[in-house]
Amino acid sequence: MQLLVICGSLRTGSFNRAICNTLPDLAPEGCEILQAPSFGGIPVYNADTQGAEGFPEQVIELAAMIAKADGVVIVSPEYNFSVPGGLKNTIDWISRLPDQPFKGKQVALQSAAGGMLGGARMQYHLRQIMVFLEAKVFTKPEVFVAFAKSKVDESGTRIADETTREMIRAQLAAFAADIGG
Amino acid sequence: MQLLVICGSLRTGSFNRAICNTLPDLAPEGCEILQAPSFGGIPVYNADTQGAEGFPEQVIELAAMIAKADGVVIVSPEYNFSVPGGLKNTIDWISRLPDQPFKGKQVALQSAAGGMLGGARMQYHLRQIMVFLEAKVFTKPEVFVAFAKSKVDESGTRIADETTREMIRAQLAAFAADIGG
Amino acid sequence: MQLLVICGSLRTGSFNRAICNTLPDLAPEGCEILQAPSFGGIPVYNADTQGAEGFPEQVIELAAMIAKADGVVIVSPEYNFSVPGGLKNTIDWISRLPDQPFKGKQVALQSAAGGMLGGARMQYHLRQIMVFLEAKVFTKPEVFVAFAKSKVDESGTRIADETTREMIRAQLAAFAADIGG
Amino acid sequence: MQLLVICGSLRTGSFNRAICNTLPDLAPEGCEILQAPSFGGIPVYNADTQGAEGFPEQVIELAAMIAKADGVVIVSPEYNFSVPGGLKNTIDWISRLPDQPFKGKQVALQSAAGGMLGGARMQYHLRQIMVFLEAKVFTKPEVFVAFAKSKVDESGTRIADETTREMIRAQLAAFAADIGG
Repeated sequence: MQLLVICGSLRTGSFNRAICNTLPDLAPEGCEILQAPSFGGIPVYNADTQGAEGFPEQVIELAAMIAKADGVVIVSPEYNFSVPGGLKNTIDWISRLPDQPFKGKQVALQSAAGGMLGGARMQYHLRQIMVFLEAKVFTKPEVFVAFAKSKVDESGTRIADETTREMIRAQLAAFAADIGG
Repeated sequence: MQLLVICGSLRTGSFNRAICNTLPDLAPEGCEILQAPSFGGIPVYNADTQGAEGFPEQVIELAAMIAKADGVVIVSPEYNFSVPGGLKNTIDWISRLPDQPFKGKQVALQSAAGGMLGGARMQYHLRQIMVFLEAKVFTKPEVFVAFAKSKVDESGTRIADETTREMIRAQLAAFAADIGG
Repeated sequence: MQLLVICGSLRTGSFNRAICNTLPDLAPEGCEILQAPSFGGIPVYNADTQGAEGFPEQVIELAAMIAKADGVVIVSPEYNFSVPGGLKNTIDWISRLPDQPFKGKQVALQSAAGGMLGGARMQYHLRQIMVFLEAKVFTKPEVFVAFAKSKVDESGTRIADETTREMIRAQLAAFAADIGG
Repeated sequence: MQLLVICGSLRTGSFNRAICNTLPDLAPEGCEILQAPSFGGIPVYNADTQGAEGFPEQVIELAAMIAKADGVVIVSPEYNFSVPGGLKNTIDWISRLPDQPFKGKQVALQSAAGGMLGGARMQYHLRQIMVFLEAKVFTKPEVFVAFAKSKVDESGTRIADETTREMIRAQLAAFAADIGG
C-alpha cells in the first residue's frame, strides 16, 4: 500500500514538514510513504492561462501521483484560520483536470501549529473543499499537533514527542485499515 | 469616501470582474470606487522567501491601498467550495506585514457563480479568515449572484440584470452608511 | 435495502416534510423508505437529567431505527444559517448513547428553503457534526431545493417540480449504489 | 455598562457555568454582569406552535434582557463539533420575534471544553449564525478554555487558573472598550 504525503508549507523548518519527515517511521508495516514534490513555483490559477498554455507540468505530475496512490495524507499549517493559499491554489489547478484525481480517493488530514488549536480550523475548511472533489475523507482519530515547537526534536525536522507520535501512528493504522477494507 | 475593490478572479471574462466593473455605477453618491491591481504574478507564500527577500512589491502596494481606503469590497468566485487559492495567497502575504491593513477595516463581500449558490460557500470561509485579521465584515444584505451568465450584458463585462444591480446597490448603500456612521 | 428519513422540521406544512413525503416515489427499486417519528417533545439535552433519569424513550427508539437502517437521509430546513436547534438537540442526545448509531453509518443530506440557497449552509454545518459522529456522509450530487414554494404541488405536501424530483432521484440512486457497493 | 451572560449548558457542574460564575470578578470596573436564566424547559421550536400559542414566556423574557443589555457574552460548550441544540433552539425562537434583539448587538463568545480545542468549532458555527442575526461579533482576543477540568477550583464552580482568568479579563476589557467606543 502506498500513501502520498502532500505538505501544505514551503518553509524548510516547517513543523508540518517535520511531520511529513516522520511519517515513514509511524506508518504500519507494508505501508510505503511517498513525499509529493513541493508546490513552490506553481503560478496562481488563471483560467485564461490554462486555456492558452494548458496545465503546469508540476500540476500534471502531482495529479498523476495522487491518482496512483492508494491514499493521500495532507499535512498542512493553518494560515489565517483557513487553508494556506498555496495549497489551495494547487488543489484549484488539480480540480480542473479532466480526470481530477481526488474523486473517490481516500484522504487523511493532519496539521501542526505553534498555537493551541493545532491547525484545526484549516482541517474543517479542507474537509468542505474535499466534498466538492468527492474525496472520501477519513474522520477519526483526527491529528492536531498543538504547540508544535515543543513536539519536534532539536533539529526541528522530526516529531520527537511520544504522545504525538502515538496519535499519528493510530491515525495511519486506522486509515490504512480503511483503505485495505 | 473611497472603497477599494479586490477581484478574486484573474480571468478576463470573469463574472466577478463584471461585478467589479459595474460597481462605480451602483455606488452611492460621494463614494469613489478604486480597483485594486491584479494579484497575478504574486508567488506562493513561503516564509523562507519572505525572510530572504522581503515582501513582493505587489503585496506592499495592495496593502497600502487597503490601509488608505475607507472600506474594502472583495468580489470573488468560489473555487472548490472555498476561497480561490490566489486570493487566499494574497491575503496570506498581506497578513504577515507588520501593520496588517485589514485590522479594524470595514469589509463587504460579493460573489458570482455560474451555479445556484452564487459563491456563498466562499463567503463564509472568507468571513472566518477575516476574524483572524480582525476586519469588521459587513453582515446583511449579502450579495450572491447566482446563474451569473444570465445576469451580464452581451459583452459579458458588466452586470445588466436589474434585480442584481438593485441588490448590489442596496448593499453598497448600507455599507457606506456603516462606514460613515 | 431500507433508508430511514429524518425530517428537521416539525411544521405540518414544511417544505422539507414535503420532500420526505415524496421520497418513496423517487427511491430506486428495492429501496424501502421509512419515516422517523417526529422529535417534537424531546426535551433540551441536560447531562444532569440524563444521569438521573436516563434517555428519553423517543431518543432510544430513534437510535434503534438508525442502527437498523442501511442508510439515513436527513432532510432539514436551515434556521439562522445553521442546523435547526431541535434537530441538533436530537443528535446531541443520540451522540451520548453507549453505541451511538451514526458511527460508520451512510448518511445523505437534503434541504429545502424558501430562499435561493436552498438550505446549503445547514448542510455544511451538519457535515461537520457528522465528522464527530464518524458517519460516512454522501458527497455528490447534493440536493438543495431553493425557492421551495414553487416546487411543491397545490396541497403543499409533495414535490411536484420535475427537475427537483430528478435531482432527488439521482442522489438516492447514487446513495443506494454506494450503500450496496 | 451592563453585559448579559448566556450559558450554553444546563449541567450544574458545567465548566462553562464555572466561567459564567467567574465573569463578575473579571469584568472591568463599571461593567455589571447579569446572568440570563436557563433555557431548560423551552420546547423545541415548531412554527405551528408559535402560530397557535405564540412565544414561550422564557423566550420573551430572554429577548427583552438581550435588547436591554449593552452587550451579550455567550459562554457555551461544544456538542458534536457545533453549537449545543438547546442553545441553538433558544436562538431559533428568539430569531422569530418581530424585533429580534441580536440585530446590531455587540456579542462576545467564550467556550470551555474538556479537550484540547476548548470549544473552538462551536464558536465558528455560532459566528455564522450571528451573521444572519446581524449581530456585531467581537473578533480577538478569542477565549477558548481547553482541558477545562484543570482550570477550575476544587468546587468546580469557578475558574481558578490565573492564565485563563487573564485571558478572559483581556477579552472583557477589549469588548467593553468596543461597546463604549
